[in-house]
Amino acid sequence: MQLSSRGLKMARRSGVRAILEDIAVAARSGGSEEWINLSPGNPARIPDVEQVWQELAETAVAESFTAASSRYGPSRGMDRVVEAVVDHFSRRYGWPLTTENVTVGPGGQMLCFVAAALFAGDHASASRPVVLPSVPEYTGYQGLVQDSCGAVGVPPRIRLQGDRLFRYGIDMERLRRLPEIGMLLISNPSNPTGRALEPAELDHLIRVAEERGVPLIIDHAYGEPFPRVARTAVAPPFHANVVNCFTLSKAGLPGERVGFAIGPAEAIDPVVSFLSNSVLHASQSAQCLLESGLRSGRLEKLADAVIRPYYASKRRAAEQLLHELLPPSVDWRLHTADGGLFCWLWINHDWFDDLVLYERLKRRKVFVVPGRHFFVNPEDDGSLGGHATRCVRLSLSVEEPDLAEGVRRLAEELEVMSRAA
Amino acid sequence: MQLSSRGLKMARRSGVRAILEDIAVAARSGGSEEWINLSPGNPARIPDVEQVWQELAETAVAESFTAASSRYGPSRGMDRVVEAVVDHFSRRYGWPLTTENVTVGPGGQMLCFVAAALFAGDHASASRPVVLPSVPEYTGYQGLVQDSCGAVGVPPRIRLQGDRLFRYGIDMERLRRLPEIGMLLISNPSNPTGRALEPAELDHLIRVAEERGVPLIIDHAYGEPFPRVARTAVAPPFHANVVNCFTLSKAGLPGERVGFAIGPAEAIDPVVSFLSNSVLHASQSAQCLLESGLRSGRLEKLADAVIRPYYASKRRAAEQLLHELLPPSVDWRLHTADGGLFCWLWINHDWFDDLVLYERLKRRKVFVVPGRHFFVNPEDDGSLGGHATRCVRLSLSVEEPDLAEGVRRLAEELEVMSRAA
Repeated sequence: MQLSSRGLKMARRSGVRAILEDIAVAARSGGSEEWINLSPGNPARIPDVEQVWQELAETAVAESFTAASSRYGPSRGMDRVVEAVVDHFSRRYGWPLTTENVTVGPGGQMLCFVAAALFAGDHASASRPVVLPSVPEYTGYQGLVQDSCGAVGVPPRIRLQGDRLFRYGIDMERLRRLPEIGMLLISNPSNPTGRALEPAELDHLIRVAEERGVPLIIDHAYGEPFPRVARTAVAPPFHANVVNCFTLSKAGLPGERVGFAIGPAEAIDPVVSFLSNSVLHASQSAQCLLESGLRSGRLEKLADAVIRPYYASKRRAAEQLLHELLPPSVDWRLHTADGGLFCWLWINHDWFDDLVLYERLKRRKVFVVPGRHFFVNPEDDGSLGGHATRCVRLSLSVEEPDLAEGVRRLAEELEVMSRAA
Repeated sequence: MQLSSRGLKMARRSGVRAILEDIAVAARSGGSEEWINLSPGNPARIPDVEQVWQELAETAVAESFTAASSRYGPSRGMDRVVEAVVDHFSRRYGWPLTTENVTVGPGGQMLCFVAAALFAGDHASASRPVVLPSVPEYTGYQGLVQDSCGAVGVPPRIRLQGDRLFRYGIDMERLRRLPEIGMLLISNPSNPTGRALEPAELDHLIRVAEERGVPLIIDHAYGEPFPRVARTAVAPPFHANVVNCFTLSKAGLPGERVGFAIGPAEAIDPVVSFLSNSVLHASQSAQCLLESGLRSGRLEKLADAVIRPYYASKRRAAEQLLHELLPPSVDWRLHTADGGLFCWLWINHDWFDDLVLYERLKRRKVFVVPGRHFFVNPEDDGSLGGHATRCVRLSLSVEEPDLAEGVRRLAEELEVMSRAA
């Protein structure tokens, strides 16, 4: 049975998915308790967070489950849920919102997928890619685009900070030189680096979006106003060229698939139509959880009082471990972040290769994610030297003893690799 | 902001969606209790059905909510849920299933959307439409296709039965003459007619699929083994060219968005990849409801003991009302069905127009769905004479007093329209 052109592209296992399957297979083969898995994008399991959602879910099952589950609903989202979003964000940020500015969807990823389908890809006169203004970026964005133009990542500037830190900056000139842009897409804070967009950068991106007449999609999956996994430097903006995507996934409910987008009606309206043609709407019992989390104020309280301190503390512990355990003679650097789900590590040596480390650590029963998949065509990054194959993403969602042991084995492998060079 | 070619197509409000919005707006303006809504595709609210799902949901919230909601899961569906599907259908139909033959998704519609994206549309050498072997068909299939070739509907043969019945037959010769087929798609039993596919027709469709090297997608949304809203004449087939779509939507949970597909790994595998790039996976608490409905046996028991008799009885009541109330001098016919969510009514007169009736009934505060939208390019149906603009769909999910009053007003309008001719 022959796949369409789109089918051939979408059926491919992307680089990072091959890694994730490799990990799943390996973890199933040995007892999974033996493995130290520093790879996943799952949020940490935080007891206080789980308890709040459990309570809200129990109340919802008693009060709203039958009504929510037994009828089809609007593709934009249940009226009561959309109104809760409008009320919350109007109050929170003073935005002049109506329901036309909002749509609920089955997760932030689907909303980004729909936006990419609507704004990027083949246009009548040109093929316009999804543009990631600064790679490394979330690998899942690469699979969004159903046409061959795919996603294009703009390599970053690299700024060193002190002895062991570094920070990416957006190369605005290189971004401006791109011949075609269908849609700009950026996560803030960033997966994988935890990088927070600076106010001047945001203004600049909005200007590019205006000049090109395209939307800038900002994925707040780790940021404001929830879940606050990592700190940001700028509030979500309400602007005619900006679509803001929010989600409950990193606030504790990744398995439920519920998120929402806020932006100009001109952009939101086609998203609603696309949803009505595809998934119809997000699960309505999940929508009810979003509503009760917003109306009760418990969602933002969780973000502020529990989630942010949790990851800030995890981050500090990870930084300390890296300083204690990694070989001092190795030129390693960590991308700056305040909090965050990940550590983004750069090993600045010719002898280092992220895939080689991945395989070596697998033999030590530790999983990490090789960094190259986050760069979107890393082999084209002549400007980065070998940087794109010298990074590694570590997940901080594991317990600290496992993190310590994982870093210990990582340190040992780096030692061996450095000596063999 | 400029939409892509796909965006322009997917952002359009299709004919039936304009109707549905018209209805939503009108219903909001007056008190909605005044309206008799014979339009929706919502399943009826059956107390026994609601009670079963309420019980299963309460148990699930206590036992599995946290684990299901707090982690991302496999795009194919949670292991335990996929296994439940494999076990159930292996036992039920003797199919030689492994997990590779199954994927769970956020509703049957999304699974059909994904299949259409993968198999229909622009191929390297041709544009291959989604082909509906027999219209009238579910209007939602028309919006699935993101490319301009869209969906193509093959007009049916019409067979009269007795005084007041008729039945469509698939025009196999016309189907075979189509130059391009990307994917065949049929609902069984049919929305809007309740028509059950005959065994010989199914064999024939499978042969066409084999000859063309394309998949035949069978949407069992109203059928076997659940929910049994209407009777079928043939069991779902397991075949190298067949993808079977099943859903909980008409079994009482349309708001939760959960369905699954069973077919050859060659077809299921790309669906899993597409899901991983778009929605990631179906809501996992909804998946758990599917699993417990299957494992407990309660889902099939509901279909057999409650849902089927309910709609069979509703159907008989509707037929009786039509016979009692419609003007005897009007040449009206009902499409044959055993049970079903809808009555598909054909008014075989030059003076009849489905849109005119729609507007007249709106003024009488009754909603029906004009039939033309189900035909997919009805103006091309020269073979059908004026048939495509002379049909109306009535929903049986309302209470009988409302159904009676709705049919009464329909009868009055037909009387007036026939006299004015």
